[in-house]
Amino acid sequence: MRNLKVTLAYDGTGFCGWQVQPDAESIQGVLSSAIGRITGEKVLPQGSGRTDAGVHAAGQTASFAIESPIPAENLCRALNDILPRSIRIYSVCEVSAGFHARKSARAKTYQYRIFRGEICPPFISRYVWHYPYPLYWEAMRSAAALVVGEHDFTSFATVDPERDVGLTGQSNSRRIFDSRFGSENEELTYTVCGNGFLHHMVRNLVGTFLLVGKGSLGVEDITTILQARNRSEAGATAPAQGLCLMSVEY
Amino acid sequence: MRNLKVTLAYDGTGFCGWQVQPDAESIQGVLSSAIGRITGEKVLPQGSGRTDAGVHAAGQTASFAIESPIPAENLCRALNDILPRSIRIYSVCEVSAGFHARKSARAKTYQYRIFRGEICPPFISRYVWHYPYPLYWEAMRSAAALVVGEHDFTSFATVDPERDVGLTGQSNSRRIFDSRFGSENEELTYTVCGNGFLHHMVRNLVGTFLLVGKGSLGVEDITTILQARNRSEAGATAPAQGLCLMSVEY
Repeated sequence: MRNLKVTLAYDGTGFCGWQVQPDAESIQGVLSSAIGRITGEKVLPQGSGRTDAGVHAAGQTASFAIESPIPAENLCRALNDILPRSIRIYSVCEVSAGFHARKSARAKTYQYRIFRGEICPPFISRYVWHYPYPLYWEAMRSAAALVVGEHDFTSFATVDPERDVGLTGQSNSRRIFDSRFGSENEELTYTVCGNGFLHHMVRNLVGTFLLVGKGSLGVEDITTILQARNRSEAGATAPAQGLCLMSVEY
Repeated sequence: MRNLKVTLAYDGTGFCGWQVQPDAESIQGVLSSAIGRITGEKVLPQGSGRTDAGVHAAGQTASFAIESPIPAENLCRALNDILPRSIRIYSVCEVSAGFHARKSARAKTYQYRIFRGEICPPFISRYVWHYPYPLYWEAMRSAAALVVGEHDFTSFATVDPERDVGLTGQSNSRRIFDSRFGSENEELTYTVCGNGFLHHMVRNLVGTFLLVGKGSLGVEDITTILQARNRSEAGATAPAQGLCLMSVEY
């Protein structure tokens, strides 16, 4: 058996998310069918993590094992030939048998885009959260910095029965390497890099930073919320469409 | 009666074009319904020009007359509330009775985007023509400059029975103020500004400049093609999705 790693991008708008589901179009399902059509083998590529319905990826990775001797480069081209334009394979490469897109991942980087202008151009509205109301964005910048380091992120994890978050004694501790807001033109962009993320964690962080931006929370409340280890202390989940998985480091 | 001018943007992907058509969703039709819902009046907004199915606009304009006393600013907000996110109204303003979005227009600017990279990111594939093959783009640049000035563009006009192009003694002469290719990252962008454009004219120009880029035509052939006044002399019509109406000057 060969073990392959694919790097891909997708516009998540029309999909039910990464994970294969009955009666709904998923990235994993569409990719699996495409690999099957080319190689004749039934494989379910394992992603670096699931992305929710409507969440995009500029650099998702997935791995799978096949028997087919098709050269990796030809498989890449063949996949792009049959996949919809909303999913693009950037590369396919040979990896060692022990490689697993999720288990081997050392860090992931996400971006969340907030459009601040009054009218959101139709060319970006699928990729941003349109929030044209006043925000103290310097406060949001300070708040974002407070989650850097190793923390228990239970307060920022939506309970997901499929993932057993917080139910099976698994740790909700994650290390955040970088967490910052940038601003360009009419957009705020939140970039976060960490060794792992709980369910809805980035969107829950953004929803909470937004409360800081509105003045409903103080900057230092972020620390209190982290310590509470209680989802109900943090803000609402920000909309899926603003989120994009940028890259996965191994 | 009041005469109003709207400036709007749209992602043309899901529409049959600007012009209202039976059994298909047009920008004009959707806009007309929205105005009707708000004012109770049946109006058909007149665009600065039609855009084809799949063509986008970042700054289309349209005008229409209504009786309703609704303040222009409120109408703008109400329209954005009910229109799909793929159509956004940037402004609504009061204009004199003689103003007509098409007849009063003095110049229009279009952009045509060509993506040159091997893999087209899913976030821009709706807005570019993906052409990853070799091109002499300096030759394209020289060719583009040759159409500046007043010319008969019959060779670049697709015959359109609805518009009677070239059939009713109407002139096919148009004045081009600017015509140039720019290059940034993996994209070539063709920008053209003129006092009017014939049916498919920008897409036919791009399709012809591409033949120059491929070396199938020489730069100076552009002049010969213009002089021929014969559609069959020029290149094929470039795909709709790369084209965007940027602005209309009055």
